Amino acid sequence: MFREGDWVLIRYGEKRYLKRLDPAGSLNVRKDVLRFREVIGKPEGVRIGKFEVFRPTLEEIVLLGFTRKTQIIYPKDAFFIALKLGLRRDSRVLEFGTGSGALCAVLSSVAGEVWTYEEVEEFYRTAKGNLSRFGLGENVRFHLGNFLEAEVPEDFFDAVFVDVKDPAPYLEKVHKVLKDGAPAGFLLPTANQVSDLLRSLGNLFGGAEVLEILVRYYKTIPERFRPEDTMVGHTAYLVFCRKITT
Amino acid sequence: MFREGDWVLIRYGEKRYLKRLDPAGSLNVRKDVLRFREVIGKPEGVRIGKFEVFRPTLEEIVLLGFTRKTQIIYPKDAFFIALKLGLRRDSRVLEFGTGSGALCAVLSSVAGEVWTYEEVEEFYRTAKGNLSRFGLGENVRFHLGNFLEAEVPEDFFDAVFVDVKDPAPYLEKVHKVLKDGAPAGFLLPTANQVSDLLRSLGNLFGGAEVLEILVRYYKTIPERFRPEDTMVGHTAYLVFCRKITT
Amino acid sequence: MFREGDWVLIRYGEKRYLKRLDPAGSLNVRKDVLRFREVIGKPEGVRIGKFEVFRPTLEEIVLLGFTRKTQIIYPKDAFFIALKLGLRRDSRVLEFGTGSGALCAVLSSVAGEVWTYEEVEEFYRTAKGNLSRFGLGENVRFHLGNFLEAEVPEDFFDAVFVDVKDPAPYLEKVHKVLKDGAPAGFLLPTANQVSDLLRSLGNLFGGAEVLEILVRYYKTIPERFRPEDTMVGHTAYLVFCRKITT
Amino acid sequence: MFREGDWVLIRYGEKRYLKRLDPAGSLNVRKDVLRFREVIGKPEGVRIGKFEVFRPTLEEIVLLGFTRKTQIIYPKDAFFIALKLGLRRDSRVLEFGTGSGALCAVLSSVAGEVWTYEEVEEFYRTAKGNLSRFGLGENVRFHLGNFLEAEVPEDFFDAVFVDVKDPAPYLEKVHKVLKDGAPAGFLLPTANQVSDLLRSLGNLFGGAEVLEILVRYYKTIPERFRPEDTMVGHTAYLVFCRKITT
Repeated sequence: MFREGDWVLIRYGEKRYLKRLDPAGSLNVRKDVLRFREVIGKPEGVRIGKFEVFRPTLEEIVLLGFTRKTQIIYPKDAFFIALKLGLRRDSRVLEFGTGSGALCAVLSSVAGEVWTYEEVEEFYRTAKGNLSRFGLGENVRFHLGNFLEAEVPEDFFDAVFVDVKDPAPYLEKVHKVLKDGAPAGFLLPTANQVSDLLRSLGNLFGGAEVLEILVRYYKTIPERFRPEDTMVGHTAYLVFCRKITT
Repeated sequence: MFREGDWVLIRYGEKRYLKRLDPAGSLNVRKDVLRFREVIGKPEGVRIGKFEVFRPTLEEIVLLGFTRKTQIIYPKDAFFIALKLGLRRDSRVLEFGTGSGALCAVLSSVAGEVWTYEEVEEFYRTAKGNLSRFGLGENVRFHLGNFLEAEVPEDFFDAVFVDVKDPAPYLEKVHKVLKDGAPAGFLLPTANQVSDLLRSLGNLFGGAEVLEILVRYYKTIPERFRPEDTMVGHTAYLVFCRKITT
Repeated sequence: MFREGDWVLIRYGEKRYLKRLDPAGSLNVRKDVLRFREVIGKPEGVRIGKFEVFRPTLEEIVLLGFTRKTQIIYPKDAFFIALKLGLRRDSRVLEFGTGSGALCAVLSSVAGEVWTYEEVEEFYRTAKGNLSRFGLGENVRFHLGNFLEAEVPEDFFDAVFVDVKDPAPYLEKVHKVLKDGAPAGFLLPTANQVSDLLRSLGNLFGGAEVLEILVRYYKTIPERFRPEDTMVGHTAYLVFCRKITT
Repeated sequence: MFREGDWVLIRYGEKRYLKRLDPAGSLNVRKDVLRFREVIGKPEGVRIGKFEVFRPTLEEIVLLGFTRKTQIIYPKDAFFIALKLGLRRDSRVLEFGTGSGALCAVLSSVAGEVWTYEEVEEFYRTAKGNLSRFGLGENVRFHLGNFLEAEVPEDFFDAVFVDVKDPAPYLEKVHKVLKDGAPAGFLLPTANQVSDLLRSLGNLFGGAEVLEILVRYYKTIPERFRPEDTMVGHTAYLVFCRKITT
C-alpha cells in the first residue's frame, strides 16, 4: 500500500518517472494527469488511466533518483561487478572512489559490509545523500579521504573495486588490505588505461580478465519485434583479477 | 589456507580448471604438473610454477563445476537477472523450471529465500546435487513437480523468474502468487517466443522490457590490447515486467 | 581544384557539412567562418583555419545530401548488400522499392546496370532528384509503378534486392526474372517479417542467410582510445538467398 | 549451364563447399553423395537430392577458395573498405601489403585499377595464384617489394589501403602518391596500433574515423528465429582519413 512520502516509479508508455508521493503533487504527461493523492492508499502495481505505479527497484532508484556529480557506474556494469567479485551476504568489500554512490548502492545490497573512500568532499556528500534519501546503505562505511592515506587493516577485505583514473599507485596497498586470493575489479573508460593497468599488475595480481558488458534493448510491440534504434555504445572496460599471495 | 577436500580454481595461462584437493591427485597441463599435496596447507592465491590456485567464485563453480543436464542460464545473464528483479537479502523469490540449478545458485546468493520447481526428476536431482556439492543453497526450497500443480500461497513472492519454453499458461498463477507490483522475469531463446509472451502479458503485467546481455572479452596482453577473436553471440532474450494489481 | 557549384564536404572537428560552393556562401561554426569564395580555386583536401574541405564520397553524399522521404538504407548496409550480391561492373541488378534512392546510388556505383521500381510517385521523384543532383545514376533505369505489374524479361537479372514491407507476394515474379542461381537480398526491420519471409522462400530460393551489420565507431583521441558513447543499435535484418532452378 | 572445370559452390544444409567440377569427382556429406558428372550440363541453382549447386560469389571464393598464408581481410571488412574509400569503376587504388590477396580481389571488382605491393615473395605468389585461379584480377598490378622502396608517380592514386603492422613510416610516401584530398584506409588488429597511428597522422591526414564492423548471423528456422550461438568477436579496427593538401 503506497503511503505519503513514498518514492514511486511511474510508467507512462515507454516513459519512466521517479517521484515522491506528496499529496499535493501530480505528474503531467501529454494531456494526462496523475494526482498523487489518488495513488496514496492504493496497492503497488496500480494502473490509473495510462499510468502504472510501482515501488522502484534499486536499478530505477540509481538511474532516475541519484544526483550525479560524477559519471556513474551503470547498473548493467554494477550488477555484473557485484556478482563477479563473488560477494555474498557475509562479505566485506572495499570500494574507491565512491563517486555518486551508484556502485556502492548495489554492492551494499549484496555484500555484508561496504567500506568506501572518496577524496572530493562534494562527491562524498552527494553519495551519502543519495543512499540515505532512499533508505539504502545501512551497511556502508563512508570515508572522506584518499584511500592511499587511510588506515586500513591488512588481510581484511574479501574483495575490492577500484574506480579511479590511474589505479597503478594504489595496487600495492590494495594487495595488502585484501585477503589471500581475493578478487579485485577495476573500471576504466579507455583502452590506454587498460593497457597501463595490465602492465602494472605484475606479480601482485593474477588471472586477469578484461571485458565489456553490452545491453541491447528491444521494442516491445509483439508484431514488430526488433532492437531499439540506438543503444549505449560504451560505458567502460572492466578488469578483474585475483590477489596473488607472495 | 587450502585444506584437503577443498574445491579450487586452478589457472594456467588462459586455461582454468575446477578441482577437488585430493592429496593423491594432480593436474597435468602441457609439460607442467601441479601435485595437489603441494597445494594443501598453502594460502589462497598461491603461485606454484606456472599454476595459480584460488578459492572458486560462484561464477567459476557454475561454469566449471555444475553438471549440465539442460542448457544453463549463464552467469552474465544470471547476474543481471538477480539484481534486475530487485532482490535483497530479505526477498523471497520463485523460480521455475530449476534446470541444472545455475540461476538458482545465483538467486540464492542474493535473496533471502528461493523456491524452485522442476518437473523432470533427473533435472531436479542434478540441480540439488550441483548446489549441495559446493555447499550452496541453504536457503533454497527445491520442489519436484510442475509449478502449475503446486500449492503456493497467494501474494507471497517478492519476485519470480520463469525459464520454460512457453510461459503463457503460467501467467495467471504467477500473477496470483506475486505480491502487488512485484517484478517478473523470463528467459526465452527465440524471437518468436518473445513475441508470443508479449502478446500474452495482457492486463496482468505492465512495464515490459526486453533485452539481451552481451559480454565482450579482451585479450590481456598490454601491448596488443584487442577483443577476443570469437564471442558468445547469443544465449537468450530476457523479458522483465511487473505485476499489475487488478 | 574546387570550382564554383561543386559539392564539398566540410569538416570542423567531428562535425561534417555537405555544401555547394556558391561564391556568396559561407559556413559558420561556433565563432569560425568559412567563406566559400576562399575555397574556390583551392585544391581538394585544403585546410583553412579549423575547416578541412574535401570532395564528398558516395557515403557522405547519401548520408548528408540525400532528401529523405522514406527510411533510407544506410551505407553500412548498402555496402555489404552491393558486394554480397556478387555484383560486378557487368552485372544487371533489379531493386524495389526505390525509396529515397540510397541503395540505388551504391548499386549503381558497383554494377553495370540498375533497374529500380517505386510505386509512390513522390518517392520516385525524390530518388531521381537525389541521384541527378549529385551526378549519379547514369546506369540506372527508374520505373514508376509496382514491380508486380511491370513487364520485365525473364531470366534477365544477375541479382535482386527487395525492400518492401511484405516480400512474399513478390517472390514468384522475382524468381522468374532472375537468372538461374542468382542471388536475392531482402531488407526487413523486424524479426516477425524475417520469420514470415523464411517461411515463404519454399522451393524457390535456397541457401538462406540472415544477418545484421553493426558498426562500432571509436573516439579518435590517441591517448583516450574508446568506443563512442552511443551507437546505432539497429537498422534492419538482411536476408540473402539464391534462386533455385526448378 | 555448368561445364567441366567450373568452380561451384555446393550447399548441404548449413554446410558450404567450394569445388571444381572434375567429371570423376564427387562430394560425400554424411550418407549423401553428389557426383560431379551429374552437375555438368545442369543450370546454376540446381537442387540434386539435398545438395544445391551455385556459381560462387566473390565472398565465397575468398572465404572458401583462397589459400591463406597470412591472416586475411574478411569480406565483411573488405566490402566496407572498398566502398568507404569512395571507389568507382574509374578509380585507381593502391594497396599494401597484398597478403593473401583477399582485399585485392574485392578492390579489383569495384575499382578500375589496383596497384598492390608485397615484400614477402611467398605471399606475393600466393595472392597472384589465388586471383588467377578464379579468373580474377585482370586490372591488378602485382608488385614484389616494399612500397617504401618502390618508384611510384606522385598525385597518382584516388585512394589507398594500408595493411601493415606499423603504418607510421609509410605515411609520408602515402601522402605523396595520393591525389589531393583522397581517402586513405588502414587495418589494425590492436587498440595500441590505432593509438599509435592516430598520433602519427599529424598534419598529413585529416578527418580521421575509427570503427569496427560486426556481423551478427541468425539461424534461419522461421519458427525459432534467433542469433547464432557464437559470432566473430573481432577481426580488426579500421581507420579512415583524407589527405590534407599542404
